Amino acid sequence: MIEVVTIIGVGLIGGSLARALKQQGFCKAVVGVGRDRKHLGRAQALGVVDRCETDLQQAVQDADLVVVAVPLGAVEGVLTEIRQALKPDCVVTDVGSAKVTVVDAARRRLADVGQFVPGHPIAGNEKSGVEASQAALFRGRRVILTPLPETRSEALQRVREMWAVTGAEVVTMTAEHHDDVLAATSHLPHLLAYGLVDTLLRMDDSEEIFRFAAGGFRDFTRIASSDPTMWHDICLHNSGPILRSLKRFIGELTDLADAIERHDSAGVRERLQRAKAARDRFVDVFH
Amino acid sequence: MIEVVTIIGVGLIGGSLARALKQQGFCKAVVGVGRDRKHLGRAQALGVVDRCETDLQQAVQDADLVVVAVPLGAVEGVLTEIRQALKPDCVVTDVGSAKVTVVDAARRRLADVGQFVPGHPIAGNEKSGVEASQAALFRGRRVILTPLPETRSEALQRVREMWAVTGAEVVTMTAEHHDDVLAATSHLPHLLAYGLVDTLLRMDDSEEIFRFAAGGFRDFTRIASSDPTMWHDICLHNSGPILRSLKRFIGELTDLADAIERHDSAGVRERLQRAKAARDRFVDVFH
Repeated sequence: MIEVVTIIGVGLIGGSLARALKQQGFCKAVVGVGRDRKHLGRAQALGVVDRCETDLQQAVQDADLVVVAVPLGAVEGVLTEIRQALKPDCVVTDVGSAKVTVVDAARRRLADVGQFVPGHPIAGNEKSGVEASQAALFRGRRVILTPLPETRSEALQRVREMWAVTGAEVVTMTAEHHDDVLAATSHLPHLLAYGLVDTLLRMDDSEEIFRFAAGGFRDFTRIASSDPTMWHDICLHNSGPILRSLKRFIGELTDLADAIERHDSAGVRERLQRAKAARDRFVDVFH
Repeated sequence: MIEVVTIIGVGLIGGSLARALKQQGFCKAVVGVGRDRKHLGRAQALGVVDRCETDLQQAVQDADLVVVAVPLGAVEGVLTEIRQALKPDCVVTDVGSAKVTVVDAARRRLADVGQFVPGHPIAGNEKSGVEASQAALFRGRRVILTPLPETRSEALQRVREMWAVTGAEVVTMTAEHHDDVLAATSHLPHLLAYGLVDTLLRMDDSEEIFRFAAGGFRDFTRIASSDPTMWHDICLHNSGPILRSLKRFIGELTDLADAIERHDSAGVRERLQRAKAARDRFVDVFH
């Protein structure tokens, strides 16, 4: 059975996972790892983890399962540091929002990539940090695992079981497909929200413009309060699919601007009606 | 004193205004006008208005204040129909999301444009129809009035008082400035939400893509459930400012795509950090 789960990076996702595993008694001990002692101290004071470590190698050496929950830009460095210290049957997983670059890093850095299970919980919000963590964060949400051809079935099973106890629904797909789907459904909306705020900020009377921004704007841009470091890393680690989505969207918006410029009443109406129907259907059917 | 307020168009905005005026005892009677008897019957059954009319001229002939609460595309036709039936001292106002084209229509159609007070309550949500109306819709929200040079001060005062009893904060500015500010803060976000849904809809595996759309997507696209007729009219009635905002945004997004394509880490990070800081400040300071 699983005795020790080591979670590297105790932020919103790592901290919420730690809380859920402790609450459900998934393992004997949850070890939290981070570089910042003060931050780790808060995690321990909040009861999020059983034990804290700042030394990566020490933290993983007795782990049965290691969860890498750091921003994408830090994943490869972490895998490099821990590879020598892992027990032979230790399973490693991650929570990154892009999967192809993580798989590439794991192939380069891990001694036994068959023990690696790439993962991504579709949860989280615009908050960040261990203070925002909660055991229920994953309840009813989806977790996508993107096993490699060489991933061992026992390793996949161990990670499945971990997410199942958090109340999440686990699905699997290829890393490439994951990255396309997430670019469209998550990465693109975030970049639009950041882009909208930045566009308004650069306008002449941006102070006044923000003052008159209504509730729709508030909802629409909530995700622009997300952690910029995390999203910077996502942009660079999923650049291909993100660029394809961005370019499609720019094309769509350019067509809409053309229709407005031509005063093409039927064209404008058709676009808005189609989008409303799809959005209403999305809410009815899938959520 | 004000005896009769006639509200032409008893949807979300017209219905909510009627409810608020009745609740606060602003006048002796609120008359609702619409073309659809069944719809008007619902408004009366819900207690939204005191009396219903389908004949525009009859409905306004004893009114002290007429509120035109129809989609922008129908405003000019309504003004044309009512002009002969208005009492000489009757004040006319509207609630349209664009003001310059409404002012132009009022100048063309009303016998005495000095009695016209263009208005726009910054309220409403993705719902529509009288069923969604509520007396508290305007409480704590802003109403922008854009009086003309010839607007009489008593007319402006009467409309101010009406909105004051709904709990809204009344501000004034020019129609041109209103249209610029709203294009940026409201019309642009709505078009981005519609455009995002439409972009995903046109992707190969749109069914699956919608299935994996997370909470951020739901919030982000809520406004794409807004009434397409209303937004079609806004697009065509505020096309100049909307096109300027859309083109700035497309420029912003193109620059971001370039930065991602060049793997310009510092450039991407700077944009995201700036937007997050502005968004957090927007919420702290203004709301």
